[in-house]
Amino acid sequence: MISKNQIKEVNALHLKKFRDEDNLFIAEGVKIIEEIILQNPKLIKELFVTNDYILRYSNLVTDKKINYHLISDDELKKISSQTNPNGALAVCYYFGNNDFEDSAAEFNFEEKFSFYLDDIRDPGNLGTIIRMADWFGIKEIFCSPNSTDIYNNKTIQASMGAFLRVKINYCELKEVISKSNFPVYGAVINGANIYQQALKNGLIVIGNESNGIAENNLSLITHPITIPAAANNKTESLNAAMATAIICSEFFRQLEQPIKK
Amino acid sequence: MISKNQIKEVNALHLKKFRDEDNLFIAEGVKIIEEIILQNPKLIKELFVTNDYILRYSNLVTDKKINYHLISDDELKKISSQTNPNGALAVCYYFGNNDFEDSAAEFNFEEKFSFYLDDIRDPGNLGTIIRMADWFGIKEIFCSPNSTDIYNNKTIQASMGAFLRVKINYCELKEVISKSNFPVYGAVINGANIYQQALKNGLIVIGNESNGIAENNLSLITHPITIPAAANNKTESLNAAMATAIICSEFFRQLEQPIKK
Repeated sequence: MISKNQIKEVNALHLKKFRDEDNLFIAEGVKIIEEIILQNPKLIKELFVTNDYILRYSNLVTDKKINYHLISDDELKKISSQTNPNGALAVCYYFGNNDFEDSAAEFNFEEKFSFYLDDIRDPGNLGTIIRMADWFGIKEIFCSPNSTDIYNNKTIQASMGAFLRVKINYCELKEVISKSNFPVYGAVINGANIYQQALKNGLIVIGNESNGIAENNLSLITHPITIPAAANNKTESLNAAMATAIICSEFFRQLEQPIKK
Repeated sequence: MISKNQIKEVNALHLKKFRDEDNLFIAEGVKIIEEIILQNPKLIKELFVTNDYILRYSNLVTDKKINYHLISDDELKKISSQTNPNGALAVCYYFGNNDFEDSAAEFNFEEKFSFYLDDIRDPGNLGTIIRMADWFGIKEIFCSPNSTDIYNNKTIQASMGAFLRVKINYCELKEVISKSNFPVYGAVINGANIYQQALKNGLIVIGNESNGIAENNLSLITHPITIPAAANNKTESLNAAMATAIICSEFFRQLEQPIKK
């Protein structure tokens, strides 16, 4: 059972304004909730689950002593943002990822490359980039303050639990690069071919989906780079997340893969 | 002005069942409609535009003699699937991309690699892969018959007009590979490291978002490959479109980029 008031409170969290007021966000689905329970169960404030979910996952919630509200499929639909909600929805506490000052000194760009996302707007793009960062061992990424919200439901879902492991800092580019003297790569139209450059660890700036890198950040870039297209191609650009994946893969290959025989 | 009946007819096309009945689909937004008008204006059956759109694009529609219905912003909202519709919506004829028999003989896998998407389900993933294929000069890709619909609104939007240039064939894997004797790569968990393999032109099979490559297709793969992860990584997989981008980039680099000095 879930009260009308609870339904209202949970649904409010689909909006950033109310998330920020309460410092709470929503995570949905069997897989992500399993990861939260296993890795950081204290994040969970309230867990709403269906009967089917408990039949399959009673061990998990019992082992970790997670309290839950048993609700019907119809009730889950009333609080979920998904067309076909998947057994469980958790209201979670903010994990305090946003505090740049804490971590500025921690990240060593000379040991590992990372990304600065300049005004990324699509929550799915941000989430899928976080998932990829985790895959390639990038423990921290950076976003401009106007970028989409890490706590957006779609970001959390697309990250598939990687938000538990990759730290997201919202800050100005100049704050990140003021600390040290590493290369600042920027994905632009007429930069050096990524496949032919000897890439180094540093920071890689990725621009907004429509407008690229902001004017005032362009001047901070020391190494403009480009993913070359096939000859005669008519597609003007790649999706921002896809471009990030390709660039990340090439940095990883050059810097962290044994040389091909 | 738009009649109630027209609103109903257009909205029906948000569902595959009605698209297939009428052989019609929807394309939305200034950018995609500009590409359709410039590249294949005959695709357009009906064009609905707002006053603002006509103020900016009157030359484009006049030059190409495109008839249009002028509608209000509120009317556009009634037929659009988008939260913030962007000036224009076109009802378009199917472009007959689905007919495998036509093109089976056309594509030469020894000259250019391509992808077979095995049960890809997310329309955004399919669209963004089409956009990327166009970027890297892949003129044709292949999907299993149960894959998501090319004419889904989200696929069309995510492809950003690349659906006009990349042919999509729905067919069984065995039909594609029966014709010739090229390598059949498959993205799996324990394959060869893509960065350390000498890759050749051929077909690359990408599995479903949750379940990977179907059992009966696994046996057809001659070269299992893997994107290596960082040591100790905890993310189980990459998003299917991101994995496709990374693999495509590596094939492109090895096969079509001049060797790095």
